[in-house]
Amino acid sequence: MFLSCVLLAIRCLTSFNAMKYLNQTEAINVDQELFNEYKFSVDQLMELAGLSCSHAIAKCFAANEHKRVLVCCGPGNNGGDGLVCARHLSLMGYLPKVYYPKPTPNSLYENLTHQCKAMNIEFLETCPPSELLNKSYDLIVDALFGFSFKPPVREAFVPIIKALQETRLPIASIDIPSGWHVENGKNDECCFEPSLLISLTAPKLCAKLYKGPHHYLGGRFVPPALKEKYQLDLPEYPGTETCVKL
Amino acid sequence: MFLSCVLLAIRCLTSFNAMKYLNQTEAINVDQELFNEYKFSVDQLMELAGLSCSHAIAKCFAANEHKRVLVCCGPGNNGGDGLVCARHLSLMGYLPKVYYPKPTPNSLYENLTHQCKAMNIEFLETCPPSELLNKSYDLIVDALFGFSFKPPVREAFVPIIKALQETRLPIASIDIPSGWHVENGKNDECCFEPSLLISLTAPKLCAKLYKGPHHYLGGRFVPPALKEKYQLDLPEYPGTETCVKL
Repeated sequence: MFLSCVLLAIRCLTSFNAMKYLNQTEAINVDQELFNEYKFSVDQLMELAGLSCSHAIAKCFAANEHKRVLVCCGPGNNGGDGLVCARHLSLMGYLPKVYYPKPTPNSLYENLTHQCKAMNIEFLETCPPSELLNKSYDLIVDALFGFSFKPPVREAFVPIIKALQETRLPIASIDIPSGWHVENGKNDECCFEPSLLISLTAPKLCAKLYKGPHHYLGGRFVPPALKEKYQLDLPEYPGTETCVKL
Repeated sequence: MFLSCVLLAIRCLTSFNAMKYLNQTEAINVDQELFNEYKFSVDQLMELAGLSCSHAIAKCFAANEHKRVLVCCGPGNNGGDGLVCARHLSLMGYLPKVYYPKPTPNSLYENLTHQCKAMNIEFLETCPPSELLNKSYDLIVDALFGFSFKPPVREAFVPIIKALQETRLPIASIDIPSGWHVENGKNDECCFEPSLLISLTAPKLCAKLYKGPHHYLGGRFVPPALKEKYQLDLPEYPGTETCVKL
């Protein structure tokens, strides 16, 4: 019994140590290879990424206790993952609303927005102050900035980042807690700690510094040869799961 | 106790009776609305459909006992679902090969093919005769024809339909058992009974005549307003599941 506990501990420790945390350049390169070498479309991977985020959220925050969700979407792919996530949350019985201050003017994002609206997901015009946020929602999904973010935070996003710092609601961050440095984590401009971090494809360096209770990996689409090339040593996804607890 | 059993039985019975089975025109209309009114891309829905098929297969045929899978793909969207399914099966530890006798010459299908090949999924050049099929595989995925199929079976697909009739391997059919009439089911040209039928979006009329052991619904993406418009009365998907047993 004692021996098997020790062996399990060693296994956990080695598997934890082995998993690769990507720096910003590696994250960009892995992403580019998925599109350029493996010929995935953004639609495909965004759908799988957003779906896995909604599943990780459902595992940590049940719909009956965290029904009212504000999904905050940024102007890039992270925001697109958020729009997909909002749609799947809605299909799972949540009541998401979306705050999307800088909609991206291309057909992919316009269609993702349309799909949400056609499912009666409301889009907020202005950023709710943190007091109102605390009263009106049970959970915030932070899909503002991803791994290609470089500070400073643009003016349009300053109020929502402030609200994320001040709120007492649980926050689920997609890929990177927004405003964190992709490699160095918290900084003067942004220092909130999400209750759930969902790393996509592979965790980025800043995830090593994450101290919150729930860390998941999502985006079960990485081809074995790409895993090997970047020596990602990702954990096994169990059964048909789209996400795995780290 | 007795009363609650009776109530449960009544509920099961009414929910079974209530679910709509689509005729061919309704199936085509629902599909068109998803693309034209809701602005989903084929990439998005095919990814979700193929993923849900791989999950239903994994629930019925575990990878350790049904590792070697032949995925037979037709020239249309049903074949595309099959290519996506093959990729996700591979990510879940199966060893799929693909037989795709009439590849569709457009970028979506070329990319789906490329994604499979880049994950070392082998594509067969010729249709294996049923003897070889029985020896070399544990399961067949039938992604040949979907709800827009109209007889007769084209020449290129006659050998594989013949092999499906003759094989003793379990067959998992995507949306429609290939060659079945979408509304009237089996016919002189095609009368195999798959071990698993995965209806996508909503079951088609022929699924009422399905007598095999496993019937699942996949494609958890139907917007509530569309469900209502066509009075689909679909069953609830449990938790984060992408498919549900019917």
